[in-house]
Amino acid sequence: MMKFLALCFFVISLISIPIAEARIRHYKWELKYEYKSPDCYKKLVITINGRTPGPTILAQQNDTVIVEVKNSLLTANTAIHWHGIRQIGTPWFDGTEGFTQCPILPGDTFVYKFVVDRPGTYLYHAHYGMQREEGLFGSIRVALPDGESEPFAYNYDRSIILTDWYHKSSFEQAVGLSSIPFQWVGEPQSLLIQGKGRFNCSAANPPMKADVCNNTNPECSLYSTTVVPGKTYRLRISSLTALSALSFQIEGHNMTVVEADGHYVEPFVVKNLFIYSGETYSVLLYTDQDPARNYWVTTNLVSRNATATTPPGLAVLNYYPNHPRRSPPTIPPSGPMWNDVDSRFNQSVAIRARKGHVYSPPATSDRVIVLLNTQNRVNGKTRWSVNNVSYDIPHTPYLIALKENLLHTFSQTPPPEGYDFANYDIYVNQSNTNATTSDAIYRLQLNSTVDIVLQNANMINPKNSETHPWHLHGHDFWVLGYGKGKFDPINDPKKYNLVDPIMKNTVPVHPYGWTAFRFKADNPGVWAFHCHIESHFFMGMGVAFEEGIERVGKLPSSIVGCGETKHLLKP
Amino acid sequence: MMKFLALCFFVISLISIPIAEARIRHYKWELKYEYKSPDCYKKLVITINGRTPGPTILAQQNDTVIVEVKNSLLTANTAIHWHGIRQIGTPWFDGTEGFTQCPILPGDTFVYKFVVDRPGTYLYHAHYGMQREEGLFGSIRVALPDGESEPFAYNYDRSIILTDWYHKSSFEQAVGLSSIPFQWVGEPQSLLIQGKGRFNCSAANPPMKADVCNNTNPECSLYSTTVVPGKTYRLRISSLTALSALSFQIEGHNMTVVEADGHYVEPFVVKNLFIYSGETYSVLLYTDQDPARNYWVTTNLVSRNATATTPPGLAVLNYYPNHPRRSPPTIPPSGPMWNDVDSRFNQSVAIRARKGHVYSPPATSDRVIVLLNTQNRVNGKTRWSVNNVSYDIPHTPYLIALKENLLHTFSQTPPPEGYDFANYDIYVNQSNTNATTSDAIYRLQLNSTVDIVLQNANMINPKNSETHPWHLHGHDFWVLGYGKGKFDPINDPKKYNLVDPIMKNTVPVHPYGWTAFRFKADNPGVWAFHCHIESHFFMGMGVAFEEGIERVGKLPSSIVGCGETKHLLKP
Repeated sequence: MMKFLALCFFVISLISIPIAEARIRHYKWELKYEYKSPDCYKKLVITINGRTPGPTILAQQNDTVIVEVKNSLLTANTAIHWHGIRQIGTPWFDGTEGFTQCPILPGDTFVYKFVVDRPGTYLYHAHYGMQREEGLFGSIRVALPDGESEPFAYNYDRSIILTDWYHKSSFEQAVGLSSIPFQWVGEPQSLLIQGKGRFNCSAANPPMKADVCNNTNPECSLYSTTVVPGKTYRLRISSLTALSALSFQIEGHNMTVVEADGHYVEPFVVKNLFIYSGETYSVLLYTDQDPARNYWVTTNLVSRNATATTPPGLAVLNYYPNHPRRSPPTIPPSGPMWNDVDSRFNQSVAIRARKGHVYSPPATSDRVIVLLNTQNRVNGKTRWSVNNVSYDIPHTPYLIALKENLLHTFSQTPPPEGYDFANYDIYVNQSNTNATTSDAIYRLQLNSTVDIVLQNANMINPKNSETHPWHLHGHDFWVLGYGKGKFDPINDPKKYNLVDPIMKNTVPVHPYGWTAFRFKADNPGVWAFHCHIESHFFMGMGVAFEEGIERVGKLPSSIVGCGETKHLLKP
Repeated sequence: MMKFLALCFFVISLISIPIAEARIRHYKWELKYEYKSPDCYKKLVITINGRTPGPTILAQQNDTVIVEVKNSLLTANTAIHWHGIRQIGTPWFDGTEGFTQCPILPGDTFVYKFVVDRPGTYLYHAHYGMQREEGLFGSIRVALPDGESEPFAYNYDRSIILTDWYHKSSFEQAVGLSSIPFQWVGEPQSLLIQGKGRFNCSAANPPMKADVCNNTNPECSLYSTTVVPGKTYRLRISSLTALSALSFQIEGHNMTVVEADGHYVEPFVVKNLFIYSGETYSVLLYTDQDPARNYWVTTNLVSRNATATTPPGLAVLNYYPNHPRRSPPTIPPSGPMWNDVDSRFNQSVAIRARKGHVYSPPATSDRVIVLLNTQNRVNGKTRWSVNNVSYDIPHTPYLIALKENLLHTFSQTPPPEGYDFANYDIYVNQSNTNATTSDAIYRLQLNSTVDIVLQNANMINPKNSETHPWHLHGHDFWVLGYGKGKFDPINDPKKYNLVDPIMKNTVPVHPYGWTAFRFKADNPGVWAFHCHIESHFFMGMGVAFEEGIERVGKLPSSIVGCGETKHLLKP
């Protein structure tokens, strides 16, 4: 019998070798500061193996991805979040400083290891301070297993990340944001398409030397993607802007939206795609236009009036065999008006789960948490708050604190479940000076169903309400509805879409509007939920959810070392 | 008998209460990035409680100093070295990242606690990457115990730190230094006297906006120190330059040198004081000049030809009751010629222990280590080396690695004790491409006597040899001699000064010269010994000494958390 078993194992091991090898995706990255000129202006950026955006992670569903991250950032720490990957069973590898791990120190190599359990388009990026803005990000593309196919056909697959770009360092921006008086980061200097953009050096005031800004530097030649006429391209468009809401368009071409945040969308055609920081979309592009020329790819700011400060981002759709750097013969098309909120709202509503690929949400929820989004002043500082609590990230990660019973490291006063619905006027200047800061968390019943209602409102300044893209870690959620004005807890839930809601991980709440979604708290761990605008989260616009901490397995020692976790030293 | 003893303890405790309270000096510091304009150019600096230089630590001999350091530096770590304090019994609080502790993480509060066992003038500063240059430094002044007096008289006591100042961040400088091709940091933009200097904004090319550089900004008004005529001032002059060797002078006044690095100097009079990064001096200033006016205090670069790039640093000696901001009626006096090496050499030789305060060195040594200082290229990078080994700082601190038997974390191949004395020509271009990098350490016999001979040589470029101020942690050493040319191991030791050598912790080795010193390896711990030029140490110009590791007490848990020390942590 033993011999037979040994033989079995031997045969199995022979069979499984090629499969097993295919299922581990091993990456070795070194993170460094380097001088780069993504928009022709030379500044320090964070590179991965010399590049920003970093390498695209390519994997198949259920593969294990291993990324060895060597931090060579001199005196700065880091942590990398795998955006859209739920980290089921590995909550300690979510890469969220203060939530799931201590930061990775200079000189250290941290090994992330997780399963990509769903096909689709995802992202990775720094999740520490405002470090994402320094260029530490990239794409994750998870394909279906061999033999399975998407519900739509295409010939080629491309990933394109959209970002906005600042010339000041993230340190300089963060210092301004936390200063009294407040120094806002301002509009970005340029928009980048797959890491390339164009700042007009000659218009700089005061002028810049050619070794600082040079529009002939090949490093800032526009991104150009070559297509063959008569084919279908899947373009995986994602946004990792620091601040900006964007519209994305390709001159002379429509796009068919087929995927959002890793879920299939009932296809619809757009001339321009609105996209918010943290979102990913797949669109199908048919290269059915005049092949004798190239076409502009453009992205421009919406939601904020930056037409005077931030030019549109440009790239080239290169029809083979035209030269990839040949400029299209036209003026780049302008996008929609920055203040056309209705069009953006309508696109949000249009995104539904694809027929035949609907995951039905639970019919009811166990708990409803309403989160009023406001801007406040706390101790003289300008901050963002939810329900008048401005969030502070602790430095003893929750996951370790909860597992190791270090409950004194964060506030045990539960954060509020809602706001003063009856009396709060979302259309007038936020004047509540009672906002407080807290690092308390929402503790959710494991496997319970939770509804979140994001309620937007006026900011401190009059007649202004901004769009906030909120991103949930560790889960996908069903988008139940978007509304204008104040959410009505009696009547609005009756209009929820329980039939074909799209599942997403990032969702905008529009100016003076509300957004409702539902999720199952079925992933043991501690998870961030926050506005994906880098400066907004830095200014307190986030919360934390915990569920099933008692079901979390043994923590790896690599995540400890900061805050109170130092006292876990062995005798 | 027991009752008697108990009574004794009771009485002693009553007596000692007021003394014990006076002997703890407790400081609470918060480190932040802030925009400051020390030389009128606005940039991010690191402040301590809002200031750079930080607060002066005032203590008496044998006091215990406690400094609670809260790191609020966003995503950057820190560590603070107490320069000149030997840390007897507390080697873990030397504040040297990679040697004695893991860095202090953002959000963490680290508590340094140590005894200041000798009176004199000391410093503190960041000891992590090139962070010292960002402004994180200050003075330590240790007075004699009540009832004891110095061997010289003075009416007032002032601390003045000299620094050079760069407009690029330390991140930008460090990236340049580690790039291929090498990008040298260049000469500093200004020299600061007690944190104040003057960059000529209107001469900037390209021009700078007034919100970036403004010579009328009161933040960069010159440092002015008010004196009363007819008095004696003890000026504690120290240098924490990143790069520069300096001359310091006070118009119309001589200075009497009385202290160097915490040791009494046989007094001698100078018109200008040469001072190297890491050194501290006390000079006596007699305010015996015409009291109807103010006088210039100036510092200028020597050793490097920066006359075209770096203007002298200016401050005002304000004779009461003249207005402190009233400019002296004269042109600021220029210092000595930058290339007058002989004068600098002669000052070094002139510094002897004060009569009646001579600590005699051991007559012989147990070991002689000769350290050839060269510039090399290693894997295409420009580096500094000793004995053709360029030093790399490990990220598992030696102190923890040795105590916890993590010997795999650094090289166990002993570094070389000397160089090819017979064949090496110190006057020709360094062309040895065999330099290697290593993090190996010199292990010294506890209580042995060690001689160090620093041998200078030509750099990579022809006809150039620089001054390097070497700083030893954890010890004072006897300066046995300075020489020109190649150290002769047979004849030069016969000329050692064993009669009245000054004890110091920082000593220059002059161009094409040598410097010899002796120390007792009597302080259990691991100690850095390195060129105090920030970019030189960053480029590998340092070594590490260990002695008596088995005598080191239990390490505090606060120093762990990085590198392999994470594996000492539960879970």
